[in-house]
Amino acid sequence: MLNDNHWFTEVYPKHGSALSIEVKAKLHEEQTPFQKIEIYDTASFGKLMVIDGCTMVSTFDNFLYHEMMTHPVLYTHPAPKTVWVIGGGDCGSLREVLKHPEVESAVQIEIDEGVTRLAEQYFPELCASNNDPRAQLLFIDGIQWVKDAADHSVDIIIVDSTDPVGPAEGLFNEAFYRQCLRCLRPDGILAQQSESPLFHLDLIESMHGTMKAAGFASTRTLFFPQFIYPSGWWSGTLAGKGDLTAFREQDARDRPFATRYYNADIHRAAFVAPEFFREALG
Amino acid sequence: MLNDNHWFTEVYPKHGSALSIEVKAKLHEEQTPFQKIEIYDTASFGKLMVIDGCTMVSTFDNFLYHEMMTHPVLYTHPAPKTVWVIGGGDCGSLREVLKHPEVESAVQIEIDEGVTRLAEQYFPELCASNNDPRAQLLFIDGIQWVKDAADHSVDIIIVDSTDPVGPAEGLFNEAFYRQCLRCLRPDGILAQQSESPLFHLDLIESMHGTMKAAGFASTRTLFFPQFIYPSGWWSGTLAGKGDLTAFREQDARDRPFATRYYNADIHRAAFVAPEFFREALG
Repeated sequence: MLNDNHWFTEVYPKHGSALSIEVKAKLHEEQTPFQKIEIYDTASFGKLMVIDGCTMVSTFDNFLYHEMMTHPVLYTHPAPKTVWVIGGGDCGSLREVLKHPEVESAVQIEIDEGVTRLAEQYFPELCASNNDPRAQLLFIDGIQWVKDAADHSVDIIIVDSTDPVGPAEGLFNEAFYRQCLRCLRPDGILAQQSESPLFHLDLIESMHGTMKAAGFASTRTLFFPQFIYPSGWWSGTLAGKGDLTAFREQDARDRPFATRYYNADIHRAAFVAPEFFREALG
Repeated sequence: MLNDNHWFTEVYPKHGSALSIEVKAKLHEEQTPFQKIEIYDTASFGKLMVIDGCTMVSTFDNFLYHEMMTHPVLYTHPAPKTVWVIGGGDCGSLREVLKHPEVESAVQIEIDEGVTRLAEQYFPELCASNNDPRAQLLFIDGIQWVKDAADHSVDIIIVDSTDPVGPAEGLFNEAFYRQCLRCLRPDGILAQQSESPLFHLDLIESMHGTMKAAGFASTRTLFFPQFIYPSGWWSGTLAGKGDLTAFREQDARDRPFATRYYNADIHRAAFVAPEFFREALG
């Protein structure tokens, strides 16, 4: 039943498990120069985008990931004026960033234009802010962009990438983090999706070490549910030039936009580490 | 691939999705007077117990559920001496309850002795406290037990049941909650597993209303990840005779036992409701 054309299945081979989403139709399949992208219409999750066999975004539950990859880092920064989103081709993170009136410029640097073109067609709500005058969409290599950028030119860098294999591999190493650090202004923060606390604890541990080795003063991981990602539990990791424990709590409470998951109390709660995580990170 | 004998698959038909666990062997299958129980040896999750086709407990990730169904309610109660676990036949909740030195008596009331006998065989670590002199294991109907019990005879009732269909259906209604309220001493708390915030929001909303209608003064839901349950995100709901916002924080910090997920900060964080949940519950 689960391997006929009524289901899309992603197997997590290292973790002896698999998630299947019931599909009504495959709407599109395309091999770009970078990856294979599929779009499905599903029974319960709205549209589903799959990249190289991995579920990336669904209409139903993307609010969890997009809100948690943006609002916590933006409200942690004292005055975020300039934001880069590396990856993030579905434009959902860009949309959330632009909900912050303090942001004067947001640049999305996605290597694969195909992702954005398909998002515009199948996830138009995620692309609602693509024409915001503060937005700039570039389809170039994010690693090269950061290398070429001027010192102290950005407040927040959000790395909204695929898993650390294939095109995204170079976004998880010390050389990249050093370049990010160089580009960030004082108080600058790098925020990166950091996989599952249950399945990829080693990776998260190693990210903290590498970010510190690159020169960041502090690092912090936040946790949130995300059903369509491996283990149903996901994380983002922040690396800051300064302290990351305070946040603009009153601004988060008075935020001038609606959210579905994030609020000021969730902000604080999301950064609380489970006991096994604390022990692993010493 | 996912419907051959290398995989156990649970379909969530109302939510167009399915979870598969890779299995090495089916170790046992049994139809008890109440339900069908299967035990698998899995590739990555240790042993897996399945009841009526639904994943119940795995060696790998049961710590999340068992810790979060017990320690938050026990540290919320000012002085828990007597605890009943309704259901909970795998004995994992009983074991966690008995880690609290304040507890003088813990009674597990599981309708299906078959669950406990199989847990003793395949999840012996969960049954480690079954011979604790403070423990009593009964294999009778929990609804009848509560009906027959004396007024003000217990401090905490934990309902660790299957989904609200079949044998567990009668554990989710006002008549049952009224009986629980009657049995609870002042400061008494009922804690019940309350399904997925993402998939079963209506049920959780209705539980709060029914608990209040039964006479409880306050209700609160806590959230935690649980990969092998539908949506990978689960909840427990507490109903108290008194206020539920305070907890014995210093005791939770100084707890004389190890945990893997729970700690005093997780306690506070787990009770924080996402924005959509706040809105739904007014």
